Amino acid sequence: MAQNTTRIAGRHFLQIPGPSPVPDRILRAMDRAIIDHRGPEFQKLAKRVLDGIKSIFKCSGPVVIYTATGTGAWEGALVNTLSPGDRVLMCNTGQTGCLSPIEEIRQAIDAAKHPALFIVDTISSLASTEYRHDEWGVDVSIGGAQKGLMLPPGMSFNAIGPKALAASENARLPKSFFAWDDMLAANQTGFFPYTPATNMLHGLSESLDMLHEEGLDNVFARHDRHAEATRRAVRAWGLEILCRDPKYYSPTITGVLLPEGHDADVFRELALDRFDISFGTSFGKFTGKYFRIGHLGDTNDLTILGALASVEMTLALAGVPHRKGGVQAAMDYLISAARAPSRAAAE
Amino acid sequence: MAQNTTRIAGRHFLQIPGPSPVPDRILRAMDRAIIDHRGPEFQKLAKRVLDGIKSIFKCSGPVVIYTATGTGAWEGALVNTLSPGDRVLMCNTGQTGCLSPIEEIRQAIDAAKHPALFIVDTISSLASTEYRHDEWGVDVSIGGAQKGLMLPPGMSFNAIGPKALAASENARLPKSFFAWDDMLAANQTGFFPYTPATNMLHGLSESLDMLHEEGLDNVFARHDRHAEATRRAVRAWGLEILCRDPKYYSPTITGVLLPEGHDADVFRELALDRFDISFGTSFGKFTGKYFRIGHLGDTNDLTILGALASVEMTLALAGVPHRKGGVQAAMDYLISAARAPSRAAAE
Amino acid sequence: MAQNTTRIAGRHFLQIPGPSPVPDRILRAMDRAIIDHRGPEFQKLAKRVLDGIKSIFKCSGPVVIYTATGTGAWEGALVNTLSPGDRVLMCNTGQTGCLSPIEEIRQAIDAAKHPALFIVDTISSLASTEYRHDEWGVDVSIGGAQKGLMLPPGMSFNAIGPKALAASENARLPKSFFAWDDMLAANQTGFFPYTPATNMLHGLSESLDMLHEEGLDNVFARHDRHAEATRRAVRAWGLEILCRDPKYYSPTITGVLLPEGHDADVFRELALDRFDISFGTSFGKFTGKYFRIGHLGDTNDLTILGALASVEMTLALAGVPHRKGGVQAAMDYLISAARAPSRAAAE
Amino acid sequence: MAQNTTRIAGRHFLQIPGPSPVPDRILRAMDRAIIDHRGPEFQKLAKRVLDGIKSIFKCSGPVVIYTATGTGAWEGALVNTLSPGDRVLMCNTGQTGCLSPIEEIRQAIDAAKHPALFIVDTISSLASTEYRHDEWGVDVSIGGAQKGLMLPPGMSFNAIGPKALAASENARLPKSFFAWDDMLAANQTGFFPYTPATNMLHGLSESLDMLHEEGLDNVFARHDRHAEATRRAVRAWGLEILCRDPKYYSPTITGVLLPEGHDADVFRELALDRFDISFGTSFGKFTGKYFRIGHLGDTNDLTILGALASVEMTLALAGVPHRKGGVQAAMDYLISAARAPSRAAAE
Repeated sequence: MAQNTTRIAGRHFLQIPGPSPVPDRILRAMDRAIIDHRGPEFQKLAKRVLDGIKSIFKCSGPVVIYTATGTGAWEGALVNTLSPGDRVLMCNTGQTGCLSPIEEIRQAIDAAKHPALFIVDTISSLASTEYRHDEWGVDVSIGGAQKGLMLPPGMSFNAIGPKALAASENARLPKSFFAWDDMLAANQTGFFPYTPATNMLHGLSESLDMLHEEGLDNVFARHDRHAEATRRAVRAWGLEILCRDPKYYSPTITGVLLPEGHDADVFRELALDRFDISFGTSFGKFTGKYFRIGHLGDTNDLTILGALASVEMTLALAGVPHRKGGVQAAMDYLISAARAPSRAAAE
Repeated sequence: MAQNTTRIAGRHFLQIPGPSPVPDRILRAMDRAIIDHRGPEFQKLAKRVLDGIKSIFKCSGPVVIYTATGTGAWEGALVNTLSPGDRVLMCNTGQTGCLSPIEEIRQAIDAAKHPALFIVDTISSLASTEYRHDEWGVDVSIGGAQKGLMLPPGMSFNAIGPKALAASENARLPKSFFAWDDMLAANQTGFFPYTPATNMLHGLSESLDMLHEEGLDNVFARHDRHAEATRRAVRAWGLEILCRDPKYYSPTITGVLLPEGHDADVFRELALDRFDISFGTSFGKFTGKYFRIGHLGDTNDLTILGALASVEMTLALAGVPHRKGGVQAAMDYLISAARAPSRAAAE
Repeated sequence: MAQNTTRIAGRHFLQIPGPSPVPDRILRAMDRAIIDHRGPEFQKLAKRVLDGIKSIFKCSGPVVIYTATGTGAWEGALVNTLSPGDRVLMCNTGQTGCLSPIEEIRQAIDAAKHPALFIVDTISSLASTEYRHDEWGVDVSIGGAQKGLMLPPGMSFNAIGPKALAASENARLPKSFFAWDDMLAANQTGFFPYTPATNMLHGLSESLDMLHEEGLDNVFARHDRHAEATRRAVRAWGLEILCRDPKYYSPTITGVLLPEGHDADVFRELALDRFDISFGTSFGKFTGKYFRIGHLGDTNDLTILGALASVEMTLALAGVPHRKGGVQAAMDYLISAARAPSRAAAE
Repeated sequence: MAQNTTRIAGRHFLQIPGPSPVPDRILRAMDRAIIDHRGPEFQKLAKRVLDGIKSIFKCSGPVVIYTATGTGAWEGALVNTLSPGDRVLMCNTGQTGCLSPIEEIRQAIDAAKHPALFIVDTISSLASTEYRHDEWGVDVSIGGAQKGLMLPPGMSFNAIGPKALAASENARLPKSFFAWDDMLAANQTGFFPYTPATNMLHGLSESLDMLHEEGLDNVFARHDRHAEATRRAVRAWGLEILCRDPKYYSPTITGVLLPEGHDADVFRELALDRFDISFGTSFGKFTGKYFRIGHLGDTNDLTILGALASVEMTLALAGVPHRKGGVQAAMDYLISAARAPSRAAAE
């Protein structure tokens, strides 16, 4: 009974690593009558977003927009550049809150004079932290709509560099839905080769407006601030952050290890039941030992503090050994951030 | 610049004494095509809400629904029961977070055998704390939509007892828009004497569903819990609550006095600027000396904690003398409330 | 069974004399989180609409915005200008689709050198046909939101001329909710003396944008075109229009008399049942003998033709003697209107 | 200028072969906060729609729900059942308003004792006309969301029969995003192998409710009625329907051939410009010679008549030789349909 009450009143706190909360402005932009996807109004919309999305990837070449979630965009990157028998080196990342050093990897590839295409998954960080497709020499950047772009899930991207585009002419993996050539040809005139998700494009247009109104650098500084506030709370509780090297801390999620003998999934269920908040689940070899706090997308200081408060209270309710004071540490940091001239400067 | 960033991202925290945040379910219920206010669909809707609103006032007699905010419903109560020259005793309350003891006042009137009509303003507490129009012997209860009922402002109520209804037959103040007789006659058949605010009625229908899904007693317990958490924070900061007798603490708002020399309006502006949160302003003889924290309507533990965190951080930024630990005190209380069997029992 | 099917699919046709269909843009503008009605964002909104609404009344003096439907604005006009015992000449109009010649009435008053205040009800025509508060010498213009302004019901207006404003200083009818003085004083700084219907003001802001994007003269020409198309259909059916002098035909509604022995309310019910369309009911001495077709607000040629088609089909189903060809006559007129250079010129 | 006016006021008529107009109920169901796609609320939603969609395909086996438009579901059907080198017989249909006789084709395959899998594209007819996956012996049925299901584009389906499921175990085309095995395994527990389009699933849930509230047989009868009304109009104008054998007339779209020398795309542009209506474009060898009228999804008699009126008026404005009376013929038919006892019986 208590749970029902908690759940009914007020807004759910969605603090998973994504999808992130969709702002009302985007929901409203999508809540509209369907337009003819072969008419002039659609054409204007498509040109606007096909051009605008480049400002997010910081690329000058084409970006393909798929009606598919991120897994689909990954398939798109592979089937358009590879042929049966090709060798792929895939790094296993993405589960535990580390940010990959893209620029350094590029330098390492260059230093080795290796001809491999460099394909980067930006899904969990795009529009939340600095990313420079062109400058960093990425060949294909894979992005998704439902994280930093603040859209509902259902749209994903391939930003395509010149080397990848050239490779696509010889790639022999079979493909249809994810094929770049049909897409790029149709996009030239502001259309799609098959029915696109029109209302998602309306949402994307609004998202681009919002990000540029705030300013991308401000968006990134905000994510950094919330990530640091979260880490200060975790340390104050005496818990461990699941990313060994602080240099690679993620600006969008923080993995929190629970002490031996405490099940992170039980912890998440209790938080959901008592405080109507969702945290991210665990994967891989640490399954059940950690949970993930998402602090990305359309959020602010007070919501992050509410989320951290739920962690601190759930630790107490679940009998997990910890020190009080995590929320206090986060507040102290946010006070100093609000005071610092650097904040005003950066933002 | 910093301010803009803070303001743009995430949701505004609306912690004024009302209007309270409107839940998405109600906004969506109102976001619909207008229906014919003289047709059968409207008739069903009107009957449903005219009947349902009685469960909120706990009355068996008629409730008049006005397309007007609370001031209008006050005018309705007066012009329908009074004549020029009548004497009115009006208590000056409502600005500083006290709950009036309605039942005791009724007993005092009865003890004095005084024939006066007893007119009660429930605007700031209806659907947030216990109220019993019939049982407490109230003659006219005045209510509004934009607080415990969680609707946008624009609708208000007169719950009418038999003595007031009888008095209305002899009341000689001129009236038209607020006249009970035309309204009650039209309501009999499920209609209104003039065009009603149809979409507000859709919202009211949804509001009634939500309140009863949660259970009124659970709603009241939730408000009590948030009010107590707020007061514990205020005391921990070493600040004064603007209600002398704890017996009369309001379950919906808490007035917080700032120390001499600190302007509460400057404080509110700083909180708005840095943390995108709105608090209630001050009135009357303490103008500028206190601000009001609204903790009513569709809210939950984490949102209240985020709001209290903004107070604690703004106290620091504004240089207001205080002790840290208000949020911690509120969390400690909410942990104990989550643990207590009484909570589960009550809820 | 057949009725249910018809009713469920597609959009209801709302062809009553008002409220008129609310466009999605306005519904979406209202479907948003409540803002603090004492904060800076509200202040900007209030100033924008308080200024913008003058462009609709074509007045330079203040316009009071009430959270009330039209009946309330009528009360506002009277209680602010009159005292007990004052004599009022009230013309009985508004039920049967005629447009009153405001300019000519003003001239008649002037010719008689009569000192009476001239109070005009614009509710059914404002923003649908030419209206000039200042130029026509009106003292108080009464308007509503739910017709030409395309908003849901719940907001109304008093545009106040200098003579009425002067009169208000001596008016002795009791008043509170509708009092101009408090309202005008608060409006000076962008606020309201009591809680306003914030989301209706957001809707009004969007409405003003839409009307000016289309251009008021284009809006008026569109209403004229639909009214004429409707009348051509009625004449082609061999039915009578309920307005004797074509000079005073209403641009927003057309009353249609049914032949003796045919009940207009039965006709309306059949149309609702079979074609999911609402027409306006009848009042006064012709009750039951006519129905009213609303052709106002946010509508277009094809919707009007769909509505006229429902009339022609219902006439057949109800066994009302008539000639076929009403829809054809309306189409012929709309074709000629689309061809005419005057349309392009006017629009 | 004239065009702008027409375009701004009222609702656009979307009469393309799909996407069809999305009803407000579905838009509102999708206009909501994102939920955790790994939480219990999502699980309930997923189970509801995964089960409910079977009632639309009339199948007992699994239906895979893709976050992709129809082209993607086609790829899904092929890559899960075929291997490199397999032969496929593909009939070229779908452009010109004919309904394929699925049951007869099945019988022909059976008569020939041919082992081929029978894969059927239901995108343009699902939920608009009778379809029986199990009974008709279809191996894979491909469906889309944006037509009879009344959703925005962005979701598609594979209904999988036992023979296709068995074939999928040996199919060797590379696949990932569209792979059935991962999807079916995850769906067992109410989840998806990767982030699904949560809000589209909310929309699908509402769509299923709406279709069953109306009753599928009523939905089909409604589509038949509108298709027949449209064809009567076309014949009355003296124009040709682009489907030779009346036995195969489509219930969802009607292709209309213009006389020699008249460009159908110019015609469509004029209709859009003057009457704010979108018709479907032409493909293939008759490009430019015909346009398509969509009469599917959430629509009703009056909207169809408005659409037909726009055709008749545009024929006049464009100087296309024709006879008047198409709208009249459609009305005459709809009157008879409203009168016929068979309608009540069927519906």
